Amino acid sequence: METLRLYDFLPSGNGYKIRLLLTQLGMPFDRVEVNILKGETRTPEFLSKNPNGKIPTLEIEPGKYLAESNAILVYLSECTEFLPYDRFSRSQVLQWLFFEQSSHEPFIATSRFWISILGKAEEYREAIEQKRKPGYAALSLMENHLTSHIFFVGERYTIADIALFAYTHVADEGGFDLTQFPAIQGWIERVKAQPRYISITQE
Amino acid sequence: METLRLYDFLPSGNGYKIRLLLTQLGMPFDRVEVNILKGETRTPEFLSKNPNGKIPTLEIEPGKYLAESNAILVYLSECTEFLPYDRFSRSQVLQWLFFEQSSHEPFIATSRFWISILGKAEEYREAIEQKRKPGYAALSLMENHLTSHIFFVGERYTIADIALFAYTHVADEGGFDLTQFPAIQGWIERVKAQPRYISITQE
Repeated sequence: METLRLYDFLPSGNGYKIRLLLTQLGMPFDRVEVNILKGETRTPEFLSKNPNGKIPTLEIEPGKYLAESNAILVYLSECTEFLPYDRFSRSQVLQWLFFEQSSHEPFIATSRFWISILGKAEEYREAIEQKRKPGYAALSLMENHLTSHIFFVGERYTIADIALFAYTHVADEGGFDLTQFPAIQGWIERVKAQPRYISITQE
Repeated sequence: METLRLYDFLPSGNGYKIRLLLTQLGMPFDRVEVNILKGETRTPEFLSKNPNGKIPTLEIEPGKYLAESNAILVYLSECTEFLPYDRFSRSQVLQWLFFEQSSHEPFIATSRFWISILGKAEEYREAIEQKRKPGYAALSLMENHLTSHIFFVGERYTIADIALFAYTHVADEGGFDLTQFPAIQGWIERVKAQPRYISITQE
């Protein structure tokens, strides 16, 4: 098998999902840093790899690319302990992955991007304010779930946890206060205690 | 097997995805109309089925629910002609499903909701204006892909087509002009020509 090549941006939670899973799977990979702040995902060369101009993009073999962080998580975790085999459990994992992309990431990750990556909290003040309510709604839903579950699906660590962990554990960098969510905090510690855990900015 | 019960809202493209696939699979189902405009997804009773308060929600067997339209599509299509068996092709289907939820639906479906479902184009004028550029970017990406492909993955009709068709074929109801996208128009006709096709408001 060819070595996987990950087009990535170190501060990105979406990129971190893939780095974390690959590391926990023990799969070697080459990381190519693409600076999204300098327009490097908008060059003709990068758009030939992913026409949507986004990282992470995974080169599975020379010239064969897969985009969308959560689709990459599923691809890499099939037939591993990180994705349940049971049909309904696997569908629940997918449900959380779609929840993450539609009800969580657009609010929590975007706020973090404006505040902590771009450093433009003042410029985006009104937009950030609009993200507060739906962002806290996503966190409250997670908190309720984690009050009676140790992980998101099947009481074991799966890619649903990886996908939701990526931006939740740095939600404070987007101005979200996690101290009011004790079940989330406990879950964050359980994720950090997993074998071969790496932090978000660890290459 | 129990009869599936679909909690649905007839004008919803996300609900339509499931109605269309179930009909094309020839699977009988009960449809329960939930009027999202009257807060019926926010009642304690509905939130006990889907804590995220959204349709579609599928009751697979009594008390067992699955949410997120695209997760439901995958659940229903496994081991059918609507989802490729090959690992990479299946991942490409997922890539398009996540693209639909992150780069298409938030702009095109939301504009349609404000303009044609709520009938409040004037009230949401500024927000609609902000959705124009990313919405057209999603359509342009689809147009480029369809210029050299008859369907999204593997040159055959899959749930990737169903997911993208749902809001694309009614994009004009969100103020998007499809006449400039001939490849999309040709694809829309190919989808409509599929066996057991039903229209979006056909129960």
